[in-house]
Amino acid sequence: MSLYIQKFGGTSVSTLKKIKTIVNNISNFLKNGHKIVLVISAMSGDTNRLIRFSKKLNKKPTPREIDMLVSTGEQITISLITIALNTLDIEAISYTGPQLGILTSNNYTCARINNINLNMLHNDLNENKVIVVAGFQGINILGNITTLGRGGSDTTAVALSAALQAKECQIYTDVEGIYTTDPRVCTKAKYILFLTVEEMLELSSLGSKVLQIRSIEYAGKYNVKLRVLSSFNKNYGTLIIPDYLFLSNLYMENPMISGIAFNINESKITVCNIQDIPGMAYKIIKPISNANINIDMIIQNISNINNITDFTFTIEKNDFIKSYKILKKKVVNNIGGLLNIDEKITKISLVGVGMKSQSGVASHMFNILGNEGINIRMISTSEIKISILIDDKYLEKAICSLHTAFGLNIKQIIQQNNINN
Amino acid sequence: MSLYIQKFGGTSVSTLKKIKTIVNNISNFLKNGHKIVLVISAMSGDTNRLIRFSKKLNKKPTPREIDMLVSTGEQITISLITIALNTLDIEAISYTGPQLGILTSNNYTCARINNINLNMLHNDLNENKVIVVAGFQGINILGNITTLGRGGSDTTAVALSAALQAKECQIYTDVEGIYTTDPRVCTKAKYILFLTVEEMLELSSLGSKVLQIRSIEYAGKYNVKLRVLSSFNKNYGTLIIPDYLFLSNLYMENPMISGIAFNINESKITVCNIQDIPGMAYKIIKPISNANINIDMIIQNISNINNITDFTFTIEKNDFIKSYKILKKKVVNNIGGLLNIDEKITKISLVGVGMKSQSGVASHMFNILGNEGINIRMISTSEIKISILIDDKYLEKAICSLHTAFGLNIKQIIQQNNINN
Repeated sequence: MSLYIQKFGGTSVSTLKKIKTIVNNISNFLKNGHKIVLVISAMSGDTNRLIRFSKKLNKKPTPREIDMLVSTGEQITISLITIALNTLDIEAISYTGPQLGILTSNNYTCARINNINLNMLHNDLNENKVIVVAGFQGINILGNITTLGRGGSDTTAVALSAALQAKECQIYTDVEGIYTTDPRVCTKAKYILFLTVEEMLELSSLGSKVLQIRSIEYAGKYNVKLRVLSSFNKNYGTLIIPDYLFLSNLYMENPMISGIAFNINESKITVCNIQDIPGMAYKIIKPISNANINIDMIIQNISNINNITDFTFTIEKNDFIKSYKILKKKVVNNIGGLLNIDEKITKISLVGVGMKSQSGVASHMFNILGNEGINIRMISTSEIKISILIDDKYLEKAICSLHTAFGLNIKQIIQQNNINN
Repeated sequence: MSLYIQKFGGTSVSTLKKIKTIVNNISNFLKNGHKIVLVISAMSGDTNRLIRFSKKLNKKPTPREIDMLVSTGEQITISLITIALNTLDIEAISYTGPQLGILTSNNYTCARINNINLNMLHNDLNENKVIVVAGFQGINILGNITTLGRGGSDTTAVALSAALQAKECQIYTDVEGIYTTDPRVCTKAKYILFLTVEEMLELSSLGSKVLQIRSIEYAGKYNVKLRVLSSFNKNYGTLIIPDYLFLSNLYMENPMISGIAFNINESKITVCNIQDIPGMAYKIIKPISNANINIDMIIQNISNINNITDFTFTIEKNDFIKSYKILKKKVVNNIGGLLNIDEKITKISLVGVGMKSQSGVASHMFNILGNEGINIRMISTSEIKISILIDDKYLEKAICSLHTAFGLNIKQIIQQNNINN
């Protein structure tokens, strides 16, 4: 008999029919003799609807009141789920975040969980009750309701898994798991069976609609086994495991790469022909970051014999015009150089812990793209990731050829014994 | 500077436009330098919608979970009202019932308020904040959310008025106040300026959609001045005052009668020709009340020379067939007698504390009805009420002629100085 935390997102509880479906699934799961704590989100669309409502009354609603408002969404679903469980003669009880003593920081709309009072949870679990917890919400030391930011229910689930030392934290969604790449770009995308936390973080652009990034970090920090799976079928989904478990080879042979992420929302700016002297990078970047613009990749190559170099970085497309103006005014006028811009680029990242022990991933990648006639504009690497910039018109071609070449078209084989142990 | 409790019902907060209207009114009210605690209901229809939802999942949802579910309705409106007040630069803060420490009995869906923690209220009032309280809800000693039954927000408002010794408890609705009779039956119905608590209770059928009966009892017990008025105009509404204030003649000359209530949902049953011996009434009533059927009026006249009498009572139309069968089987078969039934009747009640000191109300009433050719089937009187049964086809005729004859067509004159002191 083990304890599982099961989180159901907004799309899984958006209709009475779906509620009935997942409640039946829960009932079947309980027949294995396991204990469950459920974490439930608001019905999809509910939170947005309430926020839209409030903004019609006040363009800048007080964050405390926003949290008071939106936290009703999960309160509705937890009671409905509990009521539905009761029809199946399952003893269940619902709790809001504040009722359960999920103590958070004070910052409304993006609070962090500091502590969870386990007394009520342990009591109810001892009585074999299914506990139905409102995700996304807590209480601060002032006694006010707080919320954890978008996707905060994932964090609630992981935090409860850590606190209760659950066997697994299962995130039920409307997709099969984390995919090797976006199925809309490459139809051969498969869902991944195993990922390390580190890989998942690097692949976050593929999973960001499925998992709150913070919850992944949290899972890594507290060694929570996190599984992303579908509410509506019986596949195993994607198991995200702490790095040390992966490295102990408990799970499987490391694949060379696990997935291919991409980002079409970046632009590239190069400051050409600048002096390669200490402090130059700082002089370029400082006015950009002062304007609260996030920089993603940064590249500076070695200088030529005249000590002249180029400095390149990428930013979000939204920030492009603003950045260009800042550079023109505050940098080029000051330190000289020429601006070379490119808005029509896409970033593609190969991610996999397997890279650590297998050389040649980069050269293999470059070779494939070269064969496809795709020019690489910029390269940046880390231990488990290789990111390149290419012209955005090649996005699909690049992703699909890499997906095939790195063996991702083939579905991973499930090692049953590794999944439930 | 005085403290007012203002309660806004579901129809007053059912749209963003209405919320803006009442928030503007509140802002104007605050310009008089008064302090306010607002008590807000859920948007009209919201609570029913949620209950309907839950019943689709489970015919008998757990009361605890029902309260968890429906209490979200007020949580939504208090935050919206607070957010709307903030746009007008009014410092406001919302509280759910549990947050405010409105401690209730344990019985979910119909809990009673036992205590209110005044610390937070006093702190916020001292800081000149407008406090926005979720009506209808509280917390029990188990830490669970409870609700106070239909119209429970009225009780929240009256309880806060008593606890904070507010100058007045103002119940804002979508009608002008309590009417002399139902305007749909008699178009000349006017709203009443002053009523005693006792009168209000007797007239409850006229006010039941406006005020929860329990809140009126509570107001009487704790000497709370209760005013029913419109959210959407500036009329004074109906002030319901504790009986002792009325008797002290502080308010106005007692009118002979204050209002005419009626009930078209009753049926009459007579057990004729029974022996007038001790215990007979009990033998007739016991099987009815054992079946959980409520009895309203009961009449037994003196017996004739043969010691034979008739026993008549009224019940709700819904219970008629059931009652008839019980009487047939368990009473008539047992003690004899004949059943005489009448389903097509209406009860009409004249109510007024003025009756106490003015004789002749009954004879005046009977005279008017006689002149209209309306036969009276049954009569029952109390200190401040005369109730009669007539054929239901005469409902409108009877109400309108009595309304005219007892001077109710004429609007009461407002004595300004009596209203605000």
